[in-house]
Parts: sequence; structure tokens; C-alpha cells
Amino acid sequence: MDTYKGVRDFYPEDERVQKYIFSVMEKVVESYGYEAYNASILEPTELYTNKTSEEIIKEQTYTFIDRGDRSVTLRPEMTPTVARMVAKKRRELGFPLRWYSIQNFFRYENPQKGRLREFWQLNVDLFGTPGIEADVEIIDIAYRILRAYGATEDMFVIKVADRNLLETAFDAANLTPLQKQTYRRLLDKKEKITAAEFKKQAGAISDTDPLTLIENRDTSILQALESVEKTVATLTERGVGNVVFDPSIVRGFDYYTGVVFEIFDVSGENTRSLFGGGRYDYLVEEYGGESVPAIGFGMGDVTARDFLATHQLLPENKSKAHVYLAPVTEHDAEHVNGVAAFLREKGVRVAVGMKHEKMNDHTKAAKKLHVPFFIAYGENEATTGTVKIKDLITKKEDELPLQDVARVILESEHA
Amino acid sequence: MDTYKGVRDFYPEDERVQKYIFSVMEKVVESYGYEAYNASILEPTELYTNKTSEEIIKEQTYTFIDRGDRSVTLRPEMTPTVARMVAKKRRELGFPLRWYSIQNFFRYENPQKGRLREFWQLNVDLFGTPGIEADVEIIDIAYRILRAYGATEDMFVIKVADRNLLETAFDAANLTPLQKQTYRRLLDKKEKITAAEFKKQAGAISDTDPLTLIENRDTSILQALESVEKTVATLTERGVGNVVFDPSIVRGFDYYTGVVFEIFDVSGENTRSLFGGGRYDYLVEEYGGESVPAIGFGMGDVTARDFLATHQLLPENKSKAHVYLAPVTEHDAEHVNGVAAFLREKGVRVAVGMKHEKMNDHTKAAKKLHVPFFIAYGENEATTGTVKIKDLITKKEDELPLQDVARVILESEHA
Repeated sequence: MDTYKGVRDFYPEDERVQKYIFSVMEKVVESYGYEAYNASILEPTELYTNKTSEEIIKEQTYTFIDRGDRSVTLRPEMTPTVARMVAKKRRELGFPLRWYSIQNFFRYENPQKGRLREFWQLNVDLFGTPGIEADVEIIDIAYRILRAYGATEDMFVIKVADRNLLETAFDAANLTPLQKQTYRRLLDKKEKITAAEFKKQAGAISDTDPLTLIENRDTSILQALESVEKTVATLTERGVGNVVFDPSIVRGFDYYTGVVFEIFDVSGENTRSLFGGGRYDYLVEEYGGESVPAIGFGMGDVTARDFLATHQLLPENKSKAHVYLAPVTEHDAEHVNGVAAFLREKGVRVAVGMKHEKMNDHTKAAKKLHVPFFIAYGENEATTGTVKIKDLITKKEDELPLQDVARVILESEHA
Repeated sequence: MDTYKGVRDFYPEDERVQKYIFSVMEKVVESYGYEAYNASILEPTELYTNKTSEEIIKEQTYTFIDRGDRSVTLRPEMTPTVARMVAKKRRELGFPLRWYSIQNFFRYENPQKGRLREFWQLNVDLFGTPGIEADVEIIDIAYRILRAYGATEDMFVIKVADRNLLETAFDAANLTPLQKQTYRRLLDKKEKITAAEFKKQAGAISDTDPLTLIENRDTSILQALESVEKTVATLTERGVGNVVFDPSIVRGFDYYTGVVFEIFDVSGENTRSLFGGGRYDYLVEEYGGESVPAIGFGMGDVTARDFLATHQLLPENKSKAHVYLAPVTEHDAEHVNGVAAFLREKGVRVAVGMKHEKMNDHTKAAKKLHVPFFIAYGENEATTGTVKIKDLITKKEDELPLQDVARVILESEHA
């Protein structure tokens, strides 16, 4: 029997990659003082009404009526949830509030490269600071995560823009609300059409192209330009060498208010953005109480994995178990369990051999399981106190006292 | 706005507890060579049809029709999923196969103590070994997890039974299939009724009470008794001092075939079982291919948390961030970020102060955030190279060179 369409099974070799990807995210964000939070994937449908991308809500959510006649939605993104949570306990929380979560999300889409119906995503959010120091920290963290995977600056680019700036340019170009919306959608597909086609379509919306005003540093937008330029300059000072100002970045969500940014793989293999985020200063108050300035980003597992695979940054496929410990005969089973307990005490992860009668079947099982070390243990080993330990990857075999096994394993490259 | 009914928000202080509970589970099961796997919470409804508890499927699942007319169920438990996955790749997998997952599940129930509509559960399964060495390992792991939380043997009890044995006693008592079912249901509520009431209801089902046959070690059941008695004896030899044979344990799922077990809190505060599991040797083949013997258990987060709280085994509420680093004035911000980067390099988790202008507001924020250490950094600190570090829990303050800060923090009890 197969999985539901567009979702994945994570066999251990896949789950190890997921756990690796998540552990790097976790380590970096926690080093910046971010704290994990979570919520249920079941949310009341009203949470999303008029608050996020209309396309997602109308066409892409999993929404159903429960047995008690409540409308429930499987969360398609984290931002409404986190805004709801902050709004609810605003008075008890300390600011700046730094939160992250690595959880799963659901969208009814046509499964394709980089897009599935269930995906996992890191969400990092900083609440309470309206200034660019927050913008800089958030973008810096996104950068540090990719660096922590071993990515170098030539592998990706960070593109920063500002919704305020765009709005100022819109107003300078005298766009109506409808024209603004049409222009935003045009920007969103800019990468997919030619420059000439873009010019043509932009010209159809308005005589003055807002993007041209920004690119030419028109006096009408100079003041609004300051903030995003300072953000980019500060990031550069902090050692982020691949950040650029790109006014064409918009992001699909309606709630963004200031800085927005996306990170792209430059290899050409993966065209979707790896990260995307921005400032959303007015979302928290939609869920009650005073406004709380906020900025955050999301990084999905599907695109992250594609990026790391493209740049050969994924770790090798190896079991979490260090050693497969096989009893020589059935009668050695309890003995073997004693040795296993002894090694576990010292921090070694031990899988005890079972089921097989021939030693050869044990070795085959250990190889299929990708366990790096192998030890057979029987009467002889019990008498001499020494064991033969085989490295199933390098094929090297060593004989050594049982006392030394834990040290040898934990100091090896497989630990 | 509130959450959906019967689910929880995990604010950082709650999520820290979850992460602690999960990390102990993970550490113990990985020390036995178990590997993490996962799957989507969205499963085709057919996965459960006729394969698990009928009550759960008919009354308690979240099942709906998707936009493409497929019937989808939010997984109510992990066993059908893991059996499906093993069946699919049986030939490529190495045995004994040891798998675990810590994931969320959904049941439409009336929210009450120990039961919610979304819960998290550790699932641990061992495939490929029909013998009691597998039964012993699985029960031993359940025991070691509770011990790893600091629980002592007087806090919980492990009750082991055997479906085979019960079936043998049923046959010895000449029960019809319908009588067997009624009797199993009666056993399931044994703890909730008086002994006299149980006797009365058992007598109404059959003249011979199957439980009495077992308790009296009737010759008709002696052979079937051997296996479960050996399991209990082996566990005792391995140092598990609080395991008992209790023939009244049945477990609600239809797929169990051999050993079944449950672990209970003995404090009287929490009546639901903490763990439950058993052998299910014929479930994998239901999803295609040959049979694969299997045994496993689940441990839910709601009951685990209640148990740990009752026995005061939960860690104190403290931020993951080690230190809150506040700029003395706005002009010190970039300086402070340099110091933060320096400390992070050494493994310190640093939350940088933002937003506040008065030092007192920074201190208040750090306390609200439960960050244990506090440092203010300005011109004076930059000139002298020394800082004052305050322990916000003990109120102790020390002055020391910046060079020593990381060491002092990482060697403290708050690290």
C-alpha cells in the first residue's frame, strides 16, 4: 500500500537527513537565543480568514468540518499561529521575543520539484523590535544557517527589498490600489519572463514604472530607500558578503509591511527560494490587543535538501547505531546483553544481533542496516576478555580488550 | 483567538518540557541501536480499515475527503503506518530492524485528563525476531526510559500478559468467538469495577472463568504460560525489579498476537497506562508480502508529563539562551553584536538586548524570558575588556575579563 498522494515516507536513511538538516537550524538559531515553541497543526479556519495569501486559503488549504461541526484547517504556514500565540500572552512575554519552530505544513498542491503536499519548515521570528537591528539579525541568522551547512558565499545570494519602499514608489507613480495589486503580481513573476516582456506589462499598468523610480533613485523615494540600504550595509559590515538590494522581491503574503527577503541557490538547479521572510508589524494586533512589531522567515525542508544535495553538502548515510553485537551461538545471548549494557553505559549505541543463526547472516544484516562496527561475542571472547572489532566500511579488523572498545568506537570517525 | 478544541499551544516553557521528555526517549532508544523514521500524518483511510481498533476508526478518527476526492485520515496511531513501510521495503531492510519515531497523532475525543485530540507519542518497534529476546528488549527499553527520567522502581509497575495464553484459556473454557470478545471488553474495564462485580459479569459470560484457569495454573494452559513467565524471569535477571505477570492486561488493538504489556504510575494520581505495547506478528503481511514478526510500544506525551510532574521529575523552567547581552546605549549595538559573535563561537547561546532604552527594562525582559545570565556592555566594558556578569537566579554578580565569560557560563549549572 502506498502513501497518500504528494507526501513522503521517511525511512531511516531519509529521516537521518531530515534530522541533520533540522539539527543545524536548531544549533544556529539557539546560539542567537531563540527558543522553540509549537502548536497544533489543527487550527480554527477563522485564523486565516483575510490574514494571509488568498490564493493559499481558497485553493490550497486542507479545510474540513469536524464531527462537532467546527471548521478546521491544517496549518498551511506558521505566521498566523505564532502571531495568535504572541497576541494571547503579550503581557507576560519578555521582549525582544525570539522564537523558532521546525514543524510540518500542508497545502493541497500539484506535487512537483520543490513542492509537496506536506513539507517541514523552520520558522524564526523576532518580536518587539521595530528597528533595523531586528531586520539585520534575522537575515544574518538565515545566512549563518547556510554557512553552518558548509555552504560558501558563491553558492547562494540573499536578495533584500522593502514593502514600504515599493509602496512609496507606487504612490509616487500614482498607482490606484488595483494597479498596485496587479503590479505586485507582475513583480512576483519577473524572474520567469523576459526583461522586455516585463517592461511591456509594466507599461500597460502605468505610464511611470515604480521599479524605474527606485532603480534611478528618484528623489521621491530616496528617504524610503535609506532603511533597506542601511540594512544591507550593516549586514555587509558583519561579514555577509552575498547580500544585495533587489527591489523586485515582493513575497506572496499580504501581511508583510517592511523589509522582505529571499535567498536563492545560484547553481541554477533549484529556482525556488530557499528562505523567504519579512517584516509584519500589524499582524499580531489582528488577533487582539496592541500591535507588536515582528519580523521572521521560513526555510522549507524540500528546497533545503535539494540545495544541500546539489552542492554535495549532505552527510554520508550511516546508522545511528555504532556497533552490531552478534552472539556466536544462541547460548551467548544473555552474555551479549550484559556486554551491550556495559558499552551503553559508556555512551556507545549498541544493536544486539537477534534472529540469525549463522554469523554470516549477522554480518549481512549489519551491512544492510549501515551499522559501521561489528563484533561477534561468544565463549572465547568471554574467556579472554578480548574481542575482534570490524569496521564494516573500511574492512579493517582489530583485536582489543573489551575495556577499550567504547573508547575506540567513540574516538573513531563513525562516532 | 483560541486554539482548536482539545489541542495545545506549546509556549517555550511548555515546549522545553516536551523537548526534554523527547530527548530522554531518543537517547535511550538510540543507545539500543534504534533508528528514527517518520511518515506523513495524512494517510489513505484504507490503511486502517479492518486493521486496528474499530472503535477508533468509526468514532475517533479525523477522516475527510480531499479536493481530489480521496479519503484521507489523520493518523490516530503509528503501528499501521510502520507496518505499511516495513512491508513495502521488506527485501531491502536488515533484520532485526529497530525503528522509533516521536510524532503526533489525532483522535476525536472528549478532551479530559490524560486525553487530548492531538497528542505526541514515542513508538518503538523491533521487527524480524519472533522470540522472547525481542519481547525482553522492548520491555527493558520501556523500563530504562522511565529510569532515565530519574524514576525509581517504586514509582511505576510493568504488567505483562500474553494474548496467546488468554486465547488458550478461552479455548480451554470453550468460549465462542462472541464470548471471547465480550470477555476481552470485560477485562479491559477490570480496574474500574469491583472484584465481585467482575466475578459476576464473568460468570454471566461463561461457567468457567478463563482468568481463573490461568490464576490456578490449570494444566490446560501450562504450556502457553511458559513464554510469558520466561519473559518476566529474564527481565528480572536483567535488573528490572518491578515487572509482574498480570493476565488481565489485554490492550485495545485487534492486531496484537503474543505478549502485551502496560506500565502504570503507582501513585494513584494517574490511572491511565504510561506505556502500552505488544507483539503483532501478522500485521505487516496485511500490507503485502510475507509475514514479519514484530513487537513494539507507544508512550504518550500527555501521560508521561503527568507522571513526571506528579513525581517531581521535570527540569526547572529556564531559557535555552545562556546570557542576555544588553547594549548600554544605542551606540553600543554593533559592538555588542561583535561580542555576541565572539561568545557564540565558543558555544554560548546569546540573546542580544534590543528595543529597550533603560537598562532596567533590559533586566526585566531577561527575567521574563528566564535567561539565567545578564551582561550590560558599553564603552566602559569595551575599554577595560572586563564585564560584570549577573546570575539572575542566584543574584550573584562577578566581574571578569571578557575572555573568561564563555568558560564561566559553560561551566555553570545553567549551561
